[in-house]
Amino acid sequence: MKEMDDNTRRKILKGEKTRRGILERAVNIASVEGLNGLTIGKLADDLSLSKSGLYAHFGSKEELQMSTVRHAREIFYSSVIARTEDIDDGILKLYALASEWMDQIADEVFDGGSFFAAVCAEFDDRPGRVRDLIEEVTGKWSAVLEKEARLAVRLSELKKSTTPRKLVFRIQAFVYEANRRFRFNRNDEVFAIAGEAILEYMIRNATELGRKALNEN
Amino acid sequence: MKEMDDNTRRKILKGEKTRRGILERAVNIASVEGLNGLTIGKLADDLSLSKSGLYAHFGSKEELQMSTVRHAREIFYSSVIARTEDIDDGILKLYALASEWMDQIADEVFDGGSFFAAVCAEFDDRPGRVRDLIEEVTGKWSAVLEKEARLAVRLSELKKSTTPRKLVFRIQAFVYEANRRFRFNRNDEVFAIAGEAILEYMIRNATELGRKALNEN
Repeated sequence: MKEMDDNTRRKILKGEKTRRGILERAVNIASVEGLNGLTIGKLADDLSLSKSGLYAHFGSKEELQMSTVRHAREIFYSSVIARTEDIDDGILKLYALASEWMDQIADEVFDGGSFFAAVCAEFDDRPGRVRDLIEEVTGKWSAVLEKEARLAVRLSELKKSTTPRKLVFRIQAFVYEANRRFRFNRNDEVFAIAGEAILEYMIRNATELGRKALNEN
Repeated sequence: MKEMDDNTRRKILKGEKTRRGILERAVNIASVEGLNGLTIGKLADDLSLSKSGLYAHFGSKEELQMSTVRHAREIFYSSVIARTEDIDDGILKLYALASEWMDQIADEVFDGGSFFAAVCAEFDDRPGRVRDLIEEVTGKWSAVLEKEARLAVRLSELKKSTTPRKLVFRIQAFVYEANRRFRFNRNDEVFAIAGEAILEYMIRNATELGRKALNEN
């Protein structure tokens, strides 16, 4: 492979930085106004960039939407999953993932609350690549939680009678409902209600060992 | 008051019928593409009506959105609340309201599943009259469920320790999560998971009397 000269490297890095700056803004606009509210024209205005410059980065509205969802996934991973890296696998990790996810929504890491709640509702009935990507990302998130729940069963922290799919359904239901209500009433009591519901359900499905782990943390 | 002649009455009735036909279509488009996807131009095309004719009915896009939300509320009431009229007030009524609500989503009474889940996510961060109306309608629905839960406590069907607000939070969380997942995977297993979660939580909060009522139905 030919060595890159410093100038080329700098240009690529600068291009990458600009692109990330654009996507940072795009993710926040989309979390508020939806991915369809995110036009290249509006984004260009918002960032005081030329439309042609933006086109050079993304090519089409669909590509912009795809890149925005991928960028949101990256933020989601770094603000939720990466924060639980030090936590022991199993019941504690599962609880930490749910808690970090809810904190991310309460802290409005995305301007419009849960980015994926917003785009799920927007794209669920719009077949195409964007919908497929949203389905992949949110499906992957369920899979991460379910894997952890299965591990907690194998580690005898959750009872053998626990169905990981049902447990994760409930966790997600509580967090999304807290998000939905908070977007309207701005009353953060909903996060306490959701957190209590998650913990209560996990404790009810936990073994002595699992309960001990949860109580000590 | 002056008597209306038959012609005037017929004209008004015909106008009302046309208006309802338009709104019927508008509600379904909005449940799929959102209230912002619902332009007077698109609706006119879709119904083979003139744009000016539609303007005569609604005046502005915002008025069309307001009328669409009101019409969705009407459908919601007739396909959910009205169907539980014969059911005894209290725990059975509460369970029936939740079940009818979920059936309405599973049966796709609105093309895009839960109309209010879709428009909540779309309008939560868009201040204005439409958002206020959505908040009013969904808040009213929570109030209907909470009133029934309170009554069930007073009738000694739910334990005194039950917090109606928390119970209704969970019921809504389960139904909205079933809707969210079903829009993607079309797997109606989610309704069984949600239904089981609702019943389980109600039974756990029920008195002997309440459990007996639920089991007999």
